[in-house]
Amino acid sequence: MAKRIIVIGSGAAGMSAASAAREASPDADITVFTEDEDIAYSPCAIPWGIEGRSAWDEIVMHRPEFYAEKRNIKVLTKTRVESVDGEAKTVTAAGGTYPYDSLVIATGGRVFVPPITGTDLRNVFVVRTVRDGRNIQAALKDVDRVVIGGAGVIGLELAVSLREMGKDVTVIEMMDQVIPRIADKDMADEIQRHLEDRGIKFVMKAPIQAVNGDGKVESVTAAGQEYPCGLMIFATGVRANLDIPKALGLDVGQLGALIASPTLNAYRRGRLVPDVFVAGDVMQCESAVMPGATMSQLGSTAVRQGRVAGNNAAGGEKMLFGPVASPWVSVIGDKQIAGTGLSLGLASWYGIDVATGKAEGLTRARYYPGGKELKVKVIADRTTHRIVGAQIIAGEEATGRIDWLTSAIVNGMTAEDFLVRSENAYCPPTSMVKDVVISAVEDLCRQL
Amino acid sequence: MAKRIIVIGSGAAGMSAASAAREASPDADITVFTEDEDIAYSPCAIPWGIEGRSAWDEIVMHRPEFYAEKRNIKVLTKTRVESVDGEAKTVTAAGGTYPYDSLVIATGGRVFVPPITGTDLRNVFVVRTVRDGRNIQAALKDVDRVVIGGAGVIGLELAVSLREMGKDVTVIEMMDQVIPRIADKDMADEIQRHLEDRGIKFVMKAPIQAVNGDGKVESVTAAGQEYPCGLMIFATGVRANLDIPKALGLDVGQLGALIASPTLNAYRRGRLVPDVFVAGDVMQCESAVMPGATMSQLGSTAVRQGRVAGNNAAGGEKMLFGPVASPWVSVIGDKQIAGTGLSLGLASWYGIDVATGKAEGLTRARYYPGGKELKVKVIADRTTHRIVGAQIIAGEEATGRIDWLTSAIVNGMTAEDFLVRSENAYCPPTSMVKDVVISAVEDLCRQL
Repeated sequence: MAKRIIVIGSGAAGMSAASAAREASPDADITVFTEDEDIAYSPCAIPWGIEGRSAWDEIVMHRPEFYAEKRNIKVLTKTRVESVDGEAKTVTAAGGTYPYDSLVIATGGRVFVPPITGTDLRNVFVVRTVRDGRNIQAALKDVDRVVIGGAGVIGLELAVSLREMGKDVTVIEMMDQVIPRIADKDMADEIQRHLEDRGIKFVMKAPIQAVNGDGKVESVTAAGQEYPCGLMIFATGVRANLDIPKALGLDVGQLGALIASPTLNAYRRGRLVPDVFVAGDVMQCESAVMPGATMSQLGSTAVRQGRVAGNNAAGGEKMLFGPVASPWVSVIGDKQIAGTGLSLGLASWYGIDVATGKAEGLTRARYYPGGKELKVKVIADRTTHRIVGAQIIAGEEATGRIDWLTSAIVNGMTAEDFLVRSENAYCPPTSMVKDVVISAVEDLCRQL
Repeated sequence: MAKRIIVIGSGAAGMSAASAAREASPDADITVFTEDEDIAYSPCAIPWGIEGRSAWDEIVMHRPEFYAEKRNIKVLTKTRVESVDGEAKTVTAAGGTYPYDSLVIATGGRVFVPPITGTDLRNVFVVRTVRDGRNIQAALKDVDRVVIGGAGVIGLELAVSLREMGKDVTVIEMMDQVIPRIADKDMADEIQRHLEDRGIKFVMKAPIQAVNGDGKVESVTAAGQEYPCGLMIFATGVRANLDIPKALGLDVGQLGALIASPTLNAYRRGRLVPDVFVAGDVMQCESAVMPGATMSQLGSTAVRQGRVAGNNAAGGEKMLFGPVASPWVSVIGDKQIAGTGLSLGLASWYGIDVATGKAEGLTRARYYPGGKELKVKVIADRTTHRIVGAQIIAGEEATGRIDWLTSAIVNGMTAEDFLVRSENAYCPPTSMVKDVVISAVEDLCRQL
């Protein structure tokens, strides 16, 4: 009998899992359950959708009809899974009971909204789904002043989009820097100044205490001050959506997310559950930099996890998911900021002593027109000299460089070894003859 | 007494060596001898200089006065080294005799001009020095038709520059594809079609037999056909400039270039020569992909070698130069082409059986405006599954991606391991959620 595979969740992880299951098994019976009305899109696209730079219809990669016709995958949208019976191996949803041989949990995350008053007022939003994006876009028509709660990359990308739309934008952040946790303060401050130059206001070290209004938001209180606004968006980070995993009794790790094996099987009371697989923001990962757990919560990670989970759920030739350095990049106004591995903050969280190297240059040869700024920071463990992290601010081409540094990190290269064995392709219109990445590692070696 | 260091050659390798020597030793006596009138520039810049996209004065990074004032390095331009006495440790040049404690040989390469008649006619050029570039630029004023001998990256970049200047351009190539040796035919053919669309003519499989004219070039004969032209440029590749090394009796390897140790010392009759160092196009390298020798001949390689050779020549804390995968990139019209490690041709030269994977996509998310084509090909050894090469054609951002793949290659990653452990940073304006590099390796795994 054909294997019955049920996937819960239709984001990058869930839909990749369903497609990988189909690739591994031409005859499996594959069903995706999702509460969402849209599927197969990247939440990272939403700031660009709100601004109108990308059309909502294009952001959504495929519709359920595509999966039905092209991949023989059933996708049930707006369908909440009510319960899962791990013994009987059934899912109950929309009044029906569906048996499975393999279950993939890709329930993702939910935006963390602080437990304060007023978050249920009209014109208070989170930003996660296309529906959120459309609702924000519609509500913005009658609004001049917006408060964004949280200065992470999504918050900042949103701030730029709304500013481009002519809004008065204030970002309120609890920490003393933008992009906290994954970016260092020196790099983050440069981004913050860039946004201030574009007219975006920042309120730092200010926990949000209340959302105020009569039916509809009128102001936000943070660190004792009141900030008037007609619309408020929480971009305060994502927490794993554990309702179903908890009901199934699956093991949750120290970071508040599901633990998974390298085959992406879930665990229950320390034992691997052979018929339950996990992918995406709902799970924690192993760090490729330091022994221990880490949260990745990136679309690119979710896609890779989905492929492994779906393939293994369908009984394909076993695939593994490795530890992660979690490279990220964000385009914020005219600048790109990217990072990988440990920031100084994360290094301190792991208790390791680090050295940093920095270099500045251009994305093209000095004399070739159109070159943009390129600033690279690299971080190494003082004891082992291994490169453990890097951050880049650039006018262009940060992404490939951070992927390059990520490869060095996951391969355990020391700073010295990087200089012996790393090379950069060069031509005047695309890099300096010695790429700034290499100059930064040279500086790092001087500090070690 | 301060160490006396003599560097012969003022290109990327020589000037990097001189600067690295100064960094390692504040009081060394450092002298650079060069036949060139300009120093510290990249020959790769010359096509852009001829077109006028970059100014000659800017292409030359620093003048001798800069080195004298800022780094206390003497640079003697237009000064031919007549002889070197390896026993007495002296260099004879411009009538003087200069003693050294360490000698750095960075004499680079010379354009290979085939031994045929007419290459000494007026308006026949090679393209290597800024002087060559200025001469070509001046001579082009009265010329409509140009023949370029050699369809390597410099030849093609030149062809585009001259076409942009309104010239009638014919490229004559001995092999059956452009960018032979380092690019595969499928990738190369795409570039050739792109250039044909821009009005550049190609004559393939046609060895150049004669340059014809009366005092000045009037035509070029290749494979029995005559191609009229008012100017002809040889872009036929570079051979190591071995005059001085041979006079010193230094060991030359199977590829016709100097052999050097990882410390970049030269060898004489199989023994390391402790006071003679080597850097740049004059030397052959160890391959990072397959056991054995390889030619790198890249500006980026020369800079890295110069740093090691100069530092070690000055007695700095010992540095090593590792094996190379030699990533390269070229902007040819609206397309970038990049490669690293082995092409199919080179793999066959090493006698290994390979599999290839390919994927096509965009440089940005599908729905984000401005995304450009991105085509990635990866090559793995069928026996070990190690990734041994990659090539990219893209509208933008090929460079960082090829550096990323280079890191995977030099770290010995297999195709399967790449999928387990490689990650890409993602945001809609700078990549697809699953980068095309990863999709190409997925395809490769299916072929293995």
